[in-house]
Amino acid sequence: MANTATSKKTRAATESAVTGSTGGRRRVVIENVRPQIDDGRFPIKRVVGERVVVEADAFGDGHDRISCVLLYRREQDQDWQELPMRLLGNDRWRAEFRVAEIGRYRYSVSAWVDHYETWRHDLERRPDTDRDLPMVLQMGAALIEAAAHRARGLEARRLQAAAEALTGEAPLVEKRHVAGDDENARLMHRYAERRFIAGYERELTVVVDRELARFSAWYEFFPRSCGEGSHGRFADCEPMLDYIAGMGFDVVYLPPIHPIGHKFRKGRNNVLTPESHDVGSPWAIGGPEGGHKAVHPELGTLEDFRRFVASARARGLEVALDIAYQCSPDHPYVHEHPQWFRHRPDGSIQYAENPPKKYQDIYPFDFECEAWESLWTELKSIVEFWIEQGVRIFRVDNPHTKPFPFWAWLIDDVKRAYPDVLFLAEAFTRPKIMHRLAKLGFTQSYTYFTWRNSKGELIDYFTELTRGQGREYFRPNVWPNTPDILNEYLQFGGRAAFMIRLTLAATLAASYGIYGPAFELAEGAAREPGSEEYLDSEKYQVRRWQLTRADSLHDFVALVNRIRRENPALQSDWDLRFHAVDNDKIICFSKTAEDLEDIVLVVVNLDPHHRQSGWVELPLDTFNIGTERPYQMHDLLTGARYLWYGARNYVELDPQSGPAHIFRLRRRVRREHDFDYFL
Amino acid sequence: MANTATSKKTRAATESAVTGSTGGRRRVVIENVRPQIDDGRFPIKRVVGERVVVEADAFGDGHDRISCVLLYRREQDQDWQELPMRLLGNDRWRAEFRVAEIGRYRYSVSAWVDHYETWRHDLERRPDTDRDLPMVLQMGAALIEAAAHRARGLEARRLQAAAEALTGEAPLVEKRHVAGDDENARLMHRYAERRFIAGYERELTVVVDRELARFSAWYEFFPRSCGEGSHGRFADCEPMLDYIAGMGFDVVYLPPIHPIGHKFRKGRNNVLTPESHDVGSPWAIGGPEGGHKAVHPELGTLEDFRRFVASARARGLEVALDIAYQCSPDHPYVHEHPQWFRHRPDGSIQYAENPPKKYQDIYPFDFECEAWESLWTELKSIVEFWIEQGVRIFRVDNPHTKPFPFWAWLIDDVKRAYPDVLFLAEAFTRPKIMHRLAKLGFTQSYTYFTWRNSKGELIDYFTELTRGQGREYFRPNVWPNTPDILNEYLQFGGRAAFMIRLTLAATLAASYGIYGPAFELAEGAAREPGSEEYLDSEKYQVRRWQLTRADSLHDFVALVNRIRRENPALQSDWDLRFHAVDNDKIICFSKTAEDLEDIVLVVVNLDPHHRQSGWVELPLDTFNIGTERPYQMHDLLTGARYLWYGARNYVELDPQSGPAHIFRLRRRVRREHDFDYFL
Repeated sequence: MANTATSKKTRAATESAVTGSTGGRRRVVIENVRPQIDDGRFPIKRVVGERVVVEADAFGDGHDRISCVLLYRREQDQDWQELPMRLLGNDRWRAEFRVAEIGRYRYSVSAWVDHYETWRHDLERRPDTDRDLPMVLQMGAALIEAAAHRARGLEARRLQAAAEALTGEAPLVEKRHVAGDDENARLMHRYAERRFIAGYERELTVVVDRELARFSAWYEFFPRSCGEGSHGRFADCEPMLDYIAGMGFDVVYLPPIHPIGHKFRKGRNNVLTPESHDVGSPWAIGGPEGGHKAVHPELGTLEDFRRFVASARARGLEVALDIAYQCSPDHPYVHEHPQWFRHRPDGSIQYAENPPKKYQDIYPFDFECEAWESLWTELKSIVEFWIEQGVRIFRVDNPHTKPFPFWAWLIDDVKRAYPDVLFLAEAFTRPKIMHRLAKLGFTQSYTYFTWRNSKGELIDYFTELTRGQGREYFRPNVWPNTPDILNEYLQFGGRAAFMIRLTLAATLAASYGIYGPAFELAEGAAREPGSEEYLDSEKYQVRRWQLTRADSLHDFVALVNRIRRENPALQSDWDLRFHAVDNDKIICFSKTAEDLEDIVLVVVNLDPHHRQSGWVELPLDTFNIGTERPYQMHDLLTGARYLWYGARNYVELDPQSGPAHIFRLRRRVRREHDFDYFL
Repeated sequence: MANTATSKKTRAATESAVTGSTGGRRRVVIENVRPQIDDGRFPIKRVVGERVVVEADAFGDGHDRISCVLLYRREQDQDWQELPMRLLGNDRWRAEFRVAEIGRYRYSVSAWVDHYETWRHDLERRPDTDRDLPMVLQMGAALIEAAAHRARGLEARRLQAAAEALTGEAPLVEKRHVAGDDENARLMHRYAERRFIAGYERELTVVVDRELARFSAWYEFFPRSCGEGSHGRFADCEPMLDYIAGMGFDVVYLPPIHPIGHKFRKGRNNVLTPESHDVGSPWAIGGPEGGHKAVHPELGTLEDFRRFVASARARGLEVALDIAYQCSPDHPYVHEHPQWFRHRPDGSIQYAENPPKKYQDIYPFDFECEAWESLWTELKSIVEFWIEQGVRIFRVDNPHTKPFPFWAWLIDDVKRAYPDVLFLAEAFTRPKIMHRLAKLGFTQSYTYFTWRNSKGELIDYFTELTRGQGREYFRPNVWPNTPDILNEYLQFGGRAAFMIRLTLAATLAASYGIYGPAFELAEGAAREPGSEEYLDSEKYQVRRWQLTRADSLHDFVALVNRIRRENPALQSDWDLRFHAVDNDKIICFSKTAEDLEDIVLVVVNLDPHHRQSGWVELPLDTFNIGTERPYQMHDLLTGARYLWYGARNYVELDPQSGPAHIFRLRRRVRREHDFDYFL
């Protein structure tokens, strides 16, 4: 597992199988290199400091030994770092490297027939009585001598001496020692004859983000609801920032902050007949005051926004903006760039429709228009504009209704200039489309979590997310609620349902978010039966929230976020494991940090109405726990400590008093021979 | 399932995602196209008349409908045939075509946003009261009119009329009929606006062989054992050809027929000290009389060989030659092309070694030599030489000890000139190497069958062979014995073991072979305990076989081969299914022909020593059999007919009298209402 890059650097051999004077003699095949997405068309993703474990099938013809190396480099570097790969068996090889910096890395694999290793192996199997031995030793000496000519200084002299020893007067046993010597072998690997080296046919890419891409807690709110008067301004949000930071979130995500259109403006609860003071939907972007690069005057000025970003940053919060590429009929683009929209036979511009529904307040862009190139350029400039204002995170609205090539181009271009920028895809659509958006570059992705409420659904879905090949590029960001989605589980489950869903979101996934204060105030009222829309939704009106209500989940959320920060096990997704419980209403899963130093076990009662109990069954081997002693389960939510014995243990959870345990597993329990209380 | 190629032909769009003026507007993504081997690097395989079922993921952004087509063509053709693909759900599309000719075909997938289908779907959902309806109809008319301009004659006029009907004075219901009309839809598909068509990024290839590539029975024998005197000649083999044809084989495979070296010739039972009359191993190729293009004088002349080939053909047999690229020290190449061999420090040529074993009678070629190009050319010319003598099948000896690029080049080159040539890879080596050889072009492959004797081993291995992705390129040819391998199962199982293994080979796999007469005479004597070498192996000496022995399995083999020929179910590998039996010594499996017209059920007692019995459990649904009536099992080996009831039925097999059933399943049993006896 050591990551000791040799100082020697080589070029990856990328010529095709049979070309040039060496082609036909390139006898080693390299195939099935992993990780790799769609034949290398898309990069895998990592954050700074993570490992990339690379495996490949490599083999040659005949009985010759081969050597196999992993090559990697930062994309901007010329030279490759090289690491020897280890044979796992069945012609599978493995090595790993760590990505140290934000940006892009390349990796590939090379291999060659290793005549020196072949010779050593051959020599080992020859008895001392073999009449051919002198000649065999001479052949080995020739290989070493050739390598000596490729080496320099001390190393060259050492190899030269080894070659001479093989053919000199020394007794056979000493010559066998020369062949068996590991340092000689190391030098022979470094200075190997690589004339017929085979390079894997492509270089693979890993995009490296900052850590927030993997581990983040998001809080979405409407700044306009923060005012004392009728419409909150950025300047009114300072207490809200304190409140959010106090709960331990990392990212504050704002719905669009731009001027809102007046034509066909929607009223409260989405009615088509607004009153004159109705504030409209922030997603109906654009008015006489400006479009996607302007700040809604009722929220403040651009300067106010920049101050808001700075205030957030001072509290350890980053601001994420909403990128919604659509226009209200009042957007300046409509008049300045009519060619970017679709025109109907009567000359009017086509508004959004999903028959029989009409969205006359929204004009989509026509990405098939002749002026698509100027449209793309302008849309990218919006992102760049907000980057210049200090924003580094964008939550992209409905990316699946814009062309895939557009996103691939935009994200790639932006990230090459600003590799610390993160994009979250709000694509609630079919699975393959969501995966395509993640593959082409979105940093994080919304998921189906909102609609996965039963134990079976949760296990199936998170197994797919964390064990499927999608994990190399699809980073889930799970939300129990959004301004668009108040699931029935929350509508009818009361306060316990909110605690349950928060616990699941924050512990099943390393990245999660809530739309507040609706969430922590357990707002469960839907507009109408069967609808997932909020009653009196903030999308269409200003709300006043009683943040200090006694039944607020503020403290609970703050505690869960603190547990996340203190436990590395909860900061990544791949080591999630589900465990058996003999009750379908109780789900149990664990997460571990790389070295098992941190093991977190979560047990949640999914029934928000009734007390549930059952027997949890743990794979003690996996956790490196013996069966001969009890171990301690420390509930980080309550502080309670339980002694558990063996694999099966009893749990009981009352949704009213506490629907979940978040245990830290402490390995050993004190015995008279132990000095320290706990490991 | 219909294979109705439209007469219209289009070019496959293969431009990359974002290029040219349309690139950014190519909104459809096509991915995960199957079948496909290693990102399309290798072709899949079919025989003439087989289907290629192609599936692809295809989807666009937004809510627009897309259309998806399968494109295929013979490699030498310019124009593509086009077939509409059908949406299976979850953005997966499917269509299929049949390969009609030997050679190479290409296939790919294209898709586009279908504005007409999108419009039709939109229109369907609009109520009659929608105020926008006139404009919507006008937009549809514009689409149809544009298509009319791309069409000609009657079709153009029909489309023009449809466009006019949509905007004319007719009542709305009639206009809806125009949009609903299937013939209009068909024309709109044919003349669709394909300006932004997306082509799958690569063309995939299928190599189409003649039927023998999929379904073949091979018989290997040593012509030198056919003589009346000391060394048989081709002219002596006529009775042997009658005998082999009488057993119903398709292919007669001969060990190398070339002059045999004298230097370091091996004697009987592989001793290093031959006697002067010892005939040597046919694999020690080359002597003063010639090399790989010569016929061993003791077998006859080249003319005699050609006559042998013609004699075989007259009996419905094809001759397969052994291609063993290695030389005896007496081979003319050794003197004429010393640069093709590896030289040791003393100037001698390196013989084959696997320390401590030495094979001084064999010089391997050095594929890393500087003259590799002339070596390749010469080796290919050997195959071409024998093709000119009428040979079309080659069994290649140890292909895994020669470079993969060499084989890829040789096979591709030969098959482009002679697409009916078949190559069988005799690579008993590690799995990935065997698969690579199959991928790069070998028509059929030897397998691990010889060492798979227990029920679990057989089920695992044949499930992998017939259900794994390897089935697209790896065509198993299974051998119960070869001159190199007399497995212990045969050594100790007696005559019953040979019947068991023959039944398994001939029914589990569509292609199989035996090395005879050792096989049908149940020759079970090994050279020494623990060895798989035959005692008195024909590799080193001439044998006399008593073909007419009463205990010969000749008639049994003939019967099994006849059953294979009469039952299409046994002529391909993909529809193999294993069925449960509550006895580990009894294996049960079925094969079906495409349309369930032929269902063969095989039950074999794997214990050659004891009578075994058990309950077989069949999936009646799969066979389209109801549970309400009995069905008839017709044992094709004995002629016996059994009535079976329901899913579970009893079997009992005595290895001495008959260790296997090969049932043909006849669906229905006569009832008083039936007119015909059996379906």
